[in-house]
Order: sequence, then structure tokens, then C-alpha cells
Amino acid sequence: MNTEKPLILVSNDDGVHAKGLAALIEVVKPYGKVVVVAPEKGESGMSHAITIKNYLRITKLHSEENLEIYSCTGTPADSIKIALNQILDKKPDYIVSGINHGSNSSISVLYSGTLGAAMEGSFYGIPSIGFSILDHDKDADFELAKKYSKIIFEDVLKNGLPDSICLNVNFPLIDTNDVKGIKICTQTKGYWSEKFEKRTDPNGGNYYWLTGRLHNLEPNNKESDEWALANNLVAVVPIKIDLTAHETIGNLKKRLT
Amino acid sequence: MNTEKPLILVSNDDGVHAKGLAALIEVVKPYGKVVVVAPEKGESGMSHAITIKNYLRITKLHSEENLEIYSCTGTPADSIKIALNQILDKKPDYIVSGINHGSNSSISVLYSGTLGAAMEGSFYGIPSIGFSILDHDKDADFELAKKYSKIIFEDVLKNGLPDSICLNVNFPLIDTNDVKGIKICTQTKGYWSEKFEKRTDPNGGNYYWLTGRLHNLEPNNKESDEWALANNLVAVVPIKIDLTAHETIGNLKKRLT
Repeated sequence: MNTEKPLILVSNDDGVHAKGLAALIEVVKPYGKVVVVAPEKGESGMSHAITIKNYLRITKLHSEENLEIYSCTGTPADSIKIALNQILDKKPDYIVSGINHGSNSSISVLYSGTLGAAMEGSFYGIPSIGFSILDHDKDADFELAKKYSKIIFEDVLKNGLPDSICLNVNFPLIDTNDVKGIKICTQTKGYWSEKFEKRTDPNGGNYYWLTGRLHNLEPNNKESDEWALANNLVAVVPIKIDLTAHETIGNLKKRLT
Repeated sequence: MNTEKPLILVSNDDGVHAKGLAALIEVVKPYGKVVVVAPEKGESGMSHAITIKNYLRITKLHSEENLEIYSCTGTPADSIKIALNQILDKKPDYIVSGINHGSNSSISVLYSGTLGAAMEGSFYGIPSIGFSILDHDKDADFELAKKYSKIIFEDVLKNGLPDSICLNVNFPLIDTNDVKGIKICTQTKGYWSEKFEKRTDPNGGNYYWLTGRLHNLEPNNKESDEWALANNLVAVVPIKIDLTAHETIGNLKKRLT
């Protein structure tokens, strides 16, 4: 019988000093040996980006029984890669990423460094979860998120996840007592309706800041993650890394081959 | 009858001065008014990253009848966003991205800035295509790619693309005469088996360069894009932006709700 504790790799995209990362460490620490490899500084919006044209450095910041913390100069996906290849002496049993300060529901899953790290885990067949709260504040309250992260992580410990599937978990911004439960959802169809804010520098040159808001294309879809969050539910979307639109292949074959 | 020429937005991730971008402009220019908005410098591996913590600048580099070229200081996804919001006066009819110097087959689709730009088009309901050749060389030969990009682009001009689907097109590194045709494929299941190259700087500190190769988990799958490319076929994978693993929802509902 293998009595070895599970090895849990933790990362995020808000950086190694984020409050949400500390919250996630607190959640998973009772269940195994925890190794944290997270970006040195905030890497929000970095999606699945990897560092090709620059080198990476890693720094060991902390070590105690069953907990080691490293920072990495790269992206969240880089952090997972360098953890697997240079820091860990075996493949981790689980990868958790977050808890992100800010929503990664709907189409944001594709921009999110938090989910980039979790999806990286899926590539290697490691059950992985990305957690996010609907609050960008660096001092955000993580009580609700910790309570439900624990429930979801315990389920994955017990039941695993299907091959090549990770979970995208978002927590509503409400009091813990008001949560109505967990809902397994679909990724809300939508897009960011961007508005660049144009400014002029002291030398007369123009520059642009990206701002915007999510435009929900299916506000009445009760199976969607945006609907769940608006209705006080913890939204869990199972995410796959095979992007193939299998249902379109037959028709495209008729057109192009 | 609307006799206005189609508006075609072009981007890439190798930067506005890449040979592959010039090749793609040459392919699409006969079919409409072309506006290029591409990163100022190489942004390979930037995936769907967006610039949140810094501003963007755009520079108009070239203008002639039916062709305008702009550079953008951000990522490929930023380039599409700022084109839609600040440069174009109407929504483009098509977005094409590339032609990338280097493969974006298999799991590379998720790391690719080229495909990040094309997927961004899908968010806004714009038929979009990412093109890539299996050659990283900056002086790579684009003859084969131009010939087949034209065929594929003409098909999309004529038939459109299904909602929220873009195409990931990869060209094999062979003589144009040896191409056996176009194959509509699935995204090959695989992962990058990374090997970080560890070096020591003159001050004794360690740093790491990411290297690696694609590990193909289904080398005998004749429907996969890696198989097609290895067998002298142009590989076309229809890609969707809904990452939901719909088939797992029922079982997860039983476990977690």
C-alpha cells in the first residue's frame, strides 16, 4: 500500500505574494506535500503564454515540513513547466491554481493565466483546477472561496477528473451564508466589448489603455457560468484542451478536400 | 447590392516585419481592402495574452490603395482588439493571422499567438484563419503556403465558417509539388516534453532556457494534424472557443451538486 502523501503543485497568475495564493495553500496543505511555483510578479491576462525569447530564473523563498515556495520570473504556464522539469523530483498528483483575484468565467478562461497553469496540468494528465473570485481587490475576502475550494478539491482527491479535463471554478462576490451551492456549468458565450481609453503623453504622442466589460450573449441560459454566479452559485465549468470542433469536420471535408 | 470590397484584417505573432506576414498580405490583397495590425516585435508563444498593466501604442507604417499597415506595441490579441476598437471604422469581414514561422499543430495551438489572434476574431463572430508553416527560419520559403492559403481563403470567402469556429492551418515543410492535398483534421493529442537547459551566469546564478519537443500521444491517428503533416498533407483543424467539456457535465453534477 502506498502511504505516501499526495504531491500538490500550486501556482497562480497574481504572483507569489498574492493573498489568494496564500488562501489556496491553506486549503490544500492538510492533504499532502505542497510545492508552490508561482510568478515573481503579477501575470494577469497572460493566458497560456510561455517564455521563448528570454531565460527564466527560480528563487526558493520558503521551506517548512510539507511546504516549499518558489518564485519564477516567467508566466504561469512557465511556472508549471519549470516545476515539472527542474523543481519536483516526481510528477505531481494534483495542480491547483489561484485563487485568482478577479473573475475567469465565460470567455475570460481564454485570457486567464490562472487557467493557463491549470490547463498545462491537463496536458500532462494531472488533475488540475483553477479557482477565481469575482473581486480584483488585493485584500479581497477569501472565506467563501476557501470553504468551497476545499469541498471541490476533496471531491477531486476522491474521484479524480476525466482525462484531459480541468475545472474552472469561480466564486460569486457574496456572503458565505448566501451561497446556494455548487453548479456544474457551461462556459457562457460572450466577448469583451473593449473600449480603449486614449490618452496623450506630455510629448503629444497617443497611448491607449485597455478597458472593457463582458458582453454576455446568452444572459438567460441557466446552464451558463455567468448565470450561476449572478444567482449566488459557485460556478464549475469542466474545460477541455482539445479545441477541435469535431462536429464541423464532415462539412469542411466536403468543401475543402 | 453591396458592391463594397470585403474588409480583411491581418495580424501575426512574428511581428510586423516578418516575411510570413508579407506572404499573407500578398495572398489576401486581391480580395478586398486589407488592414494590417501586427505586433511591433516578435510575440511568439504569447497565446491569447492581453496587455492589462501597460498601455499600448500604435504606429502607421504604410498606406496605399486598399492596404494600410500598423504596428502595435502589444500582443497579437491586443492587435486585434485595438484594430477593432481604434483603427477600423467598421467590423472586418475576415481576420487572417500568420503566416507563422513555425508549427502550430497539436497542442501548440494553445501557446500560439497566431491562433490567439484568430480566436479573438471568433469571439466577435468574424470568420478567422491562422496559418503556419513548419519552418522557424526567418527566410523560410512561403510558396507552398501561399498557394494553399489562397485556396483555403477563397473557400472561406465563398462559404464562410460556422459560428465561433476558426481554422488552424499548418503547412508541411516539403516541395510544393509533393503536397498531396488538404486534410481536415483533429488536434493531435500530445504535450511538449520540456527540457530546460540550465546555465550559470558569470556571477554564479542559475538561469534556464526552455527547450523541448512535441510528444505525440497518438502517432497512428490518421485523422490527426500531426499525421497529416507527416504525410505531405496541408492540415486544417477547425477550432472552437467554447472549451466546455459538455460530455462530462452529467457525471460532475452527480458528484458535486
